[in-house]
Amino acid sequence: MTVEWGHCDPAGIVFNPRFFDFFDWSTALLCEAATGLPKAGMLARYDLLGIPLVETGARFLKPSRYGDAVEIVSTVVEVGRSSFAVRHRLLNGGELAVEGRERRVWAGRHPDDPARMKAAPIPEDLVRRFRGE
Amino acid sequence: MTVEWGHCDPAGIVFNPRFFDFFDWSTALLCEAATGLPKAGMLARYDLLGIPLVETGARFLKPSRYGDAVEIVSTVVEVGRSSFAVRHRLLNGGELAVEGRERRVWAGRHPDDPARMKAAPIPEDLVRRFRGE
Amino acid sequence: MTVEWGHCDPAGIVFNPRFFDFFDWSTALLCEAATGLPKAGMLARYDLLGIPLVETGARFLKPSRYGDAVEIVSTVVEVGRSSFAVRHRLLNGGELAVEGRERRVWAGRHPDDPARMKAAPIPEDLVRRFRGE
Amino acid sequence: MTVEWGHCDPAGIVFNPRFFDFFDWSTALLCEAATGLPKAGMLARYDLLGIPLVETGARFLKPSRYGDAVEIVSTVVEVGRSSFAVRHRLLNGGELAVEGRERRVWAGRHPDDPARMKAAPIPEDLVRRFRGE
Repeated sequence: MTVEWGHCDPAGIVFNPRFFDFFDWSTALLCEAATGLPKAGMLARYDLLGIPLVETGARFLKPSRYGDAVEIVSTVVEVGRSSFAVRHRLLNGGELAVEGRERRVWAGRHPDDPARMKAAPIPEDLVRRFRGE
Repeated sequence: MTVEWGHCDPAGIVFNPRFFDFFDWSTALLCEAATGLPKAGMLARYDLLGIPLVETGARFLKPSRYGDAVEIVSTVVEVGRSSFAVRHRLLNGGELAVEGRERRVWAGRHPDDPARMKAAPIPEDLVRRFRGE
Repeated sequence: MTVEWGHCDPAGIVFNPRFFDFFDWSTALLCEAATGLPKAGMLARYDLLGIPLVETGARFLKPSRYGDAVEIVSTVVEVGRSSFAVRHRLLNGGELAVEGRERRVWAGRHPDDPARMKAAPIPEDLVRRFRGE
Repeated sequence: MTVEWGHCDPAGIVFNPRFFDFFDWSTALLCEAATGLPKAGMLARYDLLGIPLVETGARFLKPSRYGDAVEIVSTVVEVGRSSFAVRHRLLNGGELAVEGRERRVWAGRHPDDPARMKAAPIPEDLVRRFRGE
């Protein structure tokens, strides 16, 4: 992707919260690749309320500027019973510019209240696909 | 309100789409003042699906910079049967910096499909309040 | 482009200010196509401080939802001495969903103060290219 | 502050990157309180190019919804020679909803190239004020 004018701040570099926008999109694409479904279809197929983020973080190693072509490489690095962790590496000119990580929960409906979320087990076939098996 | 770092672009001025964020917030406050309810409560009270924007526009007269204290004055300038128009004037240092306008529809549920929107008449008491009567 | 989760509001549709983000990106691409240079390079090549927006507007005809694939068709519809107008048509499933327009100024440096902007004549070769000649 | 419509995603809760916008604003206010200057004035006064983020992270404990009144409590938790760490606690209805942390560098101009950043020592008086002494 290309860094747009509207992603940047008065210092001419990507405003840091925008990287978390990028990572959210990248995780959606990663889930799409693993399930073969767009996020909306994935939520419907597995009867999920969502895959909420419970923890995230990033290290900023070098700035990215307006017009830079950057690449985001996202990998599932851990799959638990009902949560998974993703590592994002944003490369700019081939060099690591931002490294991010996130943990998300596989959240179904609470049996007592379908509007509330409850962690649910990740289906076996997806666990394998997330693990790249 | 104060113009924040994250509102501004590499030219050091508010990135123009942000003004439409500001105007959306200002219309929400205006509806809150007219109905005495926050937007979520207003939607529930009048059984609305929303007050979708059907048309908007703005003229940009002078730039607003990081750290500027700006004031937004929003006025209902027209109330129809099921739509209303709002004018926003963003003042910076007492001078008109941006002038915006928008038209929104009072949208209830479609009788054939409650998930679809259908324009609904604005209640009489609100019409009067929007008109400042 | 695809409508992302982060573009949408609690009604599940694109939050309207996001369309102005899309239009800004589309105008940058259009200028890139006309000049053969990315926006940063274009500003440097023509000694511009920017191409500030002086007026914009949009009509919203049908909502765009999370996951929708949309297409933005942007056309220069008018070229003046030192300003130009662009029309944006956002198509969703082949149907016109949003129609936008904008007027921008070709802004060079003020002779008395290089930090201030001053409208400058658009170079002849670009006028022709913007006009599609 | 109040959670706005435009901060929320289709699940009706704050889209997580928005919390990093909030934290950025809160750090700017914290620096303003410590230096008695708005961020732009602070950068000028101390001849800084910026206070770039080098690391950040957050844990999301409970969701925040449209219309919620939330409070952000930001504290400098560590002051080094040329960097400092801030902890942000976002409270919603008196309960901890998000806990964030960030590390920023006090970045002056590089002696060989004034456009490049170089970590600079934080002035003694500010170190004391950041430490709440």
